Amino acid sequence: MFNFTYHNPTELVFGRDSIARLSVLLPAGVRVMMTYGGGSIRRNGVYDQVRDALQGWPLVEFGGIEPNPHYETCMKAVEQVRAQNVQFLLAVGGGSVLDGTKLIAAASVFSGGDPWAMFYDWSLVPACPLPVGCVLTLPATGSESNGGAVVTRAATQEKLFFTVPQSFPRFAILDPETTYSLPPRQTANGVVDAFVHVAEQYLTYPADTPLQDRQAESLLLTLLEEGPKALRSPNDYAVRANLMWCATQALNGLIGCGVPQDWATHMIGHELTALYGIDHGQSLAVVLPGVLRHEKARKRAKLLQMADRVWQLRDGDENARVDQAIDRTERFFQSLGVATRLSDYQIPPDAASTVAQRLADRNMKLGEHGDLSLTAVQEILESRQ
Amino acid sequence: MFNFTYHNPTELVFGRDSIARLSVLLPAGVRVMMTYGGGSIRRNGVYDQVRDALQGWPLVEFGGIEPNPHYETCMKAVEQVRAQNVQFLLAVGGGSVLDGTKLIAAASVFSGGDPWAMFYDWSLVPACPLPVGCVLTLPATGSESNGGAVVTRAATQEKLFFTVPQSFPRFAILDPETTYSLPPRQTANGVVDAFVHVAEQYLTYPADTPLQDRQAESLLLTLLEEGPKALRSPNDYAVRANLMWCATQALNGLIGCGVPQDWATHMIGHELTALYGIDHGQSLAVVLPGVLRHEKARKRAKLLQMADRVWQLRDGDENARVDQAIDRTERFFQSLGVATRLSDYQIPPDAASTVAQRLADRNMKLGEHGDLSLTAVQEILESRQ
Repeated sequence: MFNFTYHNPTELVFGRDSIARLSVLLPAGVRVMMTYGGGSIRRNGVYDQVRDALQGWPLVEFGGIEPNPHYETCMKAVEQVRAQNVQFLLAVGGGSVLDGTKLIAAASVFSGGDPWAMFYDWSLVPACPLPVGCVLTLPATGSESNGGAVVTRAATQEKLFFTVPQSFPRFAILDPETTYSLPPRQTANGVVDAFVHVAEQYLTYPADTPLQDRQAESLLLTLLEEGPKALRSPNDYAVRANLMWCATQALNGLIGCGVPQDWATHMIGHELTALYGIDHGQSLAVVLPGVLRHEKARKRAKLLQMADRVWQLRDGDENARVDQAIDRTERFFQSLGVATRLSDYQIPPDAASTVAQRLADRNMKLGEHGDLSLTAVQEILESRQ
Repeated sequence: MFNFTYHNPTELVFGRDSIARLSVLLPAGVRVMMTYGGGSIRRNGVYDQVRDALQGWPLVEFGGIEPNPHYETCMKAVEQVRAQNVQFLLAVGGGSVLDGTKLIAAASVFSGGDPWAMFYDWSLVPACPLPVGCVLTLPATGSESNGGAVVTRAATQEKLFFTVPQSFPRFAILDPETTYSLPPRQTANGVVDAFVHVAEQYLTYPADTPLQDRQAESLLLTLLEEGPKALRSPNDYAVRANLMWCATQALNGLIGCGVPQDWATHMIGHELTALYGIDHGQSLAVVLPGVLRHEKARKRAKLLQMADRVWQLRDGDENARVDQAIDRTERFFQSLGVATRLSDYQIPPDAASTVAQRLADRNMKLGEHGDLSLTAVQEILESRQ
């Protein structure tokens, strides 16, 4: 086990009717900016529940934060925060709204020029961003209890992130009933996202971490069971609750304690989203099988363990089991309705070289060994046509 | 899944050489009281490592906190805290030192008469106790990242606890190397303690919580593997690290999120320790098999699940599998050298009625249904002669 530090100060309030708890969680009298995306929270009643709970707080609204939140949009919010002396940011939505809000919180107190610089040098993120709370409506990114924010700059087609301790939300309200009305595509993308978050921290190489391994497998097995159920029975409370809890646990830092981590799939996937506009979950479903097949020699021990414990593949040739574990993972994504080939999304073949070059230009250290080359990335994407 | 709140703000610093990090974790210049137990930290070098890291801080020492920390001892520390204007408490030791230190932190700012009242009414624990940090040297109680403190009042032979959000340590340093020198009895007691913490939150009844169930099973399986190894190879870093991480995860609140919880074994065990002086781990090893056998009808579904997933008992009669799961649990404790019968500790047969009456007098609601009767407790203990 590697040395590590784990510190997750976010207060999680989980369950039915928990949005009303806002009135206890928010500091009295602060001027709140409520951030959100499109119109879904108006249609599913979440907007009204939040407004009801916020009676008595001075309130500013900022809607229109898009999926893969745009830097440009967030900067408009920063202007309003400053103009109206906002003191607390309440994100109501999924990971995109939350990530955009974390950027707004940091950029609002940033004084060193263009806040985009923070994504290139995390030490520039101010020590005390505005406090952020959230009402989560889409289980997927884990952003509700981590310090990460992934943001897209439309002008340059860059999708970058920072992850810093001061960007953990103060609190996160997780009411599974808010997810009943999610479109199947978003539910499925969320399951894929959580699954791949686990894979990034689990499918590397053995490091004497039996507890973390089993915690990761616990998440994978539960996502395998509950994901399809959520598509069949969108209003099943237990299923939605289990998915919501899995997504949070998949990227709150816990299963990453003391283990090697990969994240190449995310880095490559972010480029696909930035350049070609596919959903984040879709990008992961495309890339992960390619990374696993390309790196199956170095990931062999963990892929065999996954074959055994997650896919119950225990007999026969070891090489075949490794291949089957990857095949089943890809088929699981497909079974949720998430296509796994670049051509399914009309992404041109030259994406492979374009993405590889962009990552190389940024000197990204990819994979758990930090050594995936430009050629390797290109090969991975070429295998995903 | 039940509604729940989860908030664990303790910063965990885990790994080799982490004691030196004290100089970063402690607020600059605060007057520190270092609390500890007997002489073990002097013999194993921890005392010197802590003193080295604390150069530059005004320091008061308070040693002599005993296993099952005594209220009377802690009150002497409170006098010193007040007399010397101590601002930060640093517990160096195991769960007993830490629990005693949490009491000292709260009692030092308590102004309502006898601080013992806090154990009967947790709302009396002050909102802002003195801050506590810790250097953990014995993986067992989980106290390093929870808000609980269990304290014994020698004068009345009471062993009581409080658990409140304001008593989480600010930070916990977990260096597995500090546990190399533990006597086998303490290592074994720690494994039993962590195992039973999991059992209390897992062996109840199904509540649609597949992730929490698997997280609990992850802990049990890892404790089963690593516990015996630690006794055989006390200086194996990976083994000690895994045990330390398991013990923390077993009682940091996480696996208890949204699930029913039992805790009857702990309540009965505390009485045995208070009255007859047996170790906490020993008391749990005696009581748990009795609780499980007495309640096996109501715990049947979870015992069968444990039989399958933890003990790999999948064939044959279900009743037999339930019995075997309990038998194996008891034999596991014995295999670690922890005896599981009252008579092994020379505890007299009338302990059954004495303990049952004491719990009844205190109106304890025992078990996950809150309905274990005086007769039930007596039957459980009579079965453990």
